[in-house]
Amino acid sequence: MQSRSVKILSIGKYLPKRKIYAEDLDKKLNLPEGWTAEKAGVLVRHYVENETSSKMGALAAKEAFDSAGLTLEDIDCIVCASGTGEQEIPCTASLIQKELGGEYSGIPSFDINSTCLSFVTGMDLLSYLIDAGRYNRVLVVSSEITSVGLNWDDKESCTLFGDGAAAVIIEKTPENETSKIFCSDMKTYSKGAHYSEIKGGGTKLHSREYSENNKNDFLFYMDGKKLYKMSAQILPAFIENMLKKVNLSLSDMELVIPHQASFMAMKLTQKNLNIPEGKFLYTIGHHGNTVAASIPMALYDAIESGRIKRGDKIMFLGTSAGMSVGAMAFEY
Amino acid sequence: MQSRSVKILSIGKYLPKRKIYAEDLDKKLNLPEGWTAEKAGVLVRHYVENETSSKMGALAAKEAFDSAGLTLEDIDCIVCASGTGEQEIPCTASLIQKELGGEYSGIPSFDINSTCLSFVTGMDLLSYLIDAGRYNRVLVVSSEITSVGLNWDDKESCTLFGDGAAAVIIEKTPENETSKIFCSDMKTYSKGAHYSEIKGGGTKLHSREYSENNKNDFLFYMDGKKLYKMSAQILPAFIENMLKKVNLSLSDMELVIPHQASFMAMKLTQKNLNIPEGKFLYTIGHHGNTVAASIPMALYDAIESGRIKRGDKIMFLGTSAGMSVGAMAFEY
Repeated sequence: MQSRSVKILSIGKYLPKRKIYAEDLDKKLNLPEGWTAEKAGVLVRHYVENETSSKMGALAAKEAFDSAGLTLEDIDCIVCASGTGEQEIPCTASLIQKELGGEYSGIPSFDINSTCLSFVTGMDLLSYLIDAGRYNRVLVVSSEITSVGLNWDDKESCTLFGDGAAAVIIEKTPENETSKIFCSDMKTYSKGAHYSEIKGGGTKLHSREYSENNKNDFLFYMDGKKLYKMSAQILPAFIENMLKKVNLSLSDMELVIPHQASFMAMKLTQKNLNIPEGKFLYTIGHHGNTVAASIPMALYDAIESGRIKRGDKIMFLGTSAGMSVGAMAFEY
Repeated sequence: MQSRSVKILSIGKYLPKRKIYAEDLDKKLNLPEGWTAEKAGVLVRHYVENETSSKMGALAAKEAFDSAGLTLEDIDCIVCASGTGEQEIPCTASLIQKELGGEYSGIPSFDINSTCLSFVTGMDLLSYLIDAGRYNRVLVVSSEITSVGLNWDDKESCTLFGDGAAAVIIEKTPENETSKIFCSDMKTYSKGAHYSEIKGGGTKLHSREYSENNKNDFLFYMDGKKLYKMSAQILPAFIENMLKKVNLSLSDMELVIPHQASFMAMKLTQKNLNIPEGKFLYTIGHHGNTVAASIPMALYDAIESGRIKRGDKIMFLGTSAGMSVGAMAFEY
């Protein structure tokens, strides 16, 4: 069974106040004027000042609550679906629950992590629990702080990323409505497990081993070319197979909301998949790559601007460290 | 709907070779002879030498494959359900896939984290996807390296923990069999979010800020008394309510397999819940607290020793950082 009666009820977004423009990074990195805008395609991204991941997630969630006229009490489960975490222990979802004032709420809270695809994986998994009646409404939050882990010696990667959060309330589709998830799929090819990574900070290279000599091991690394090449080979058949099983094709989609990996990779992916201009959403120019928050932040923009409306067929699509590809097609 | 037609098909366990005895810790920590054995109740625990989390997880998984006569090709999804991770990026499940030789397998791989309850949460979530037909067989791996993050100035916590891994293959119950999950539940009370934690290593206190002054912030902290007090208040009603919904009670359980938090807390919990001697499994004496791997490692011992057999009603039960309580009742 692929289809699930699940509806995206409401959504919220949080962007830190501090704006970092392409020109700022050109100067910081001693790059020729215009380099960041042209090569990274990110004109502005936001960095946290004193915001924590849980604070950003809670602020995005509050907007989603307000938009739906709901409060925390109406929520049966909180999932933090992010590639970065606030602390090693406990899971970030607990910290978000605390920020939301739910200290005594008892609402089950846990994390799901597939790096940049975490939001899609989180919504995918929880949709089965909603469809089966275990939970009625679930809050899925992606909140990412990338700015603390960038390698300023690597201009290709450090110019791409931004901080931000988005939160979505999903629920069982009301009886007289038609919102649904048609299908979703994910494939992981660990051949590319080290094409993008942060080696340190976990149990293999503990923080206590941090030194001048290995400091880059605690920062983000990616080989964008290898990642793109691998995803380009996999994606066309992956998408076609996923949609074929439910008698859909890419041309049925009103809008494709991709992970905002990098402007260049996105342009090539759009071409590779033959997706017409205007049907492939770019928000990287004003958000940067915000890891798992990229897709729900872009969804927020699409909904707010009226670009999508109830009844539209939409597809999430992305690649992530792992290396994984993932997608979900749904009626909004 | 609470019940799911899901069967634990097979299980594997991996313990690092290096044994650390209670006497070793008494000496290391300048404690009176017998202190660790008496207070922590852990006579021996295992610490990694050069094993990584993914290596341990893969070795446990291989035993589960062999035991079921299966190979990686028979698996539809790999979940790493652990409280500790090998690297910041990517998720540990990808690294386990790689260790298992699945570099080109495409098997979807991601992490689920609710600290010590991660295994229960992982099995809980994925059971819905199996029941709905999305996946037929899922590998759930808990692999934990605690020894790198212990605070040797805190004898109450550092004497409790060990390293280890367990892996379980769960599948759709074959038509002529009766294995099933009766019910499962989780509650998170973030009032206790900071009662046990590792503050550093995430985005709030990045590894680069590690110093002599704040080094303990990168190590495990717990206030065992506060945690126990909170869980003791919550657990009795939590368990009763969960079981009542499916017309079961604690006395129907052949065996309760609890998270091996600490010997003292477990003894008190057993008494608090009125569970008779012999029906509450202790493995902490030879494993220590291995975070999320505690429950599946104990399950392994119970199966291997013949303590449980097909048809038995079993309950997983635990508390975790967050602070959360969780449980699952199933027919093995």
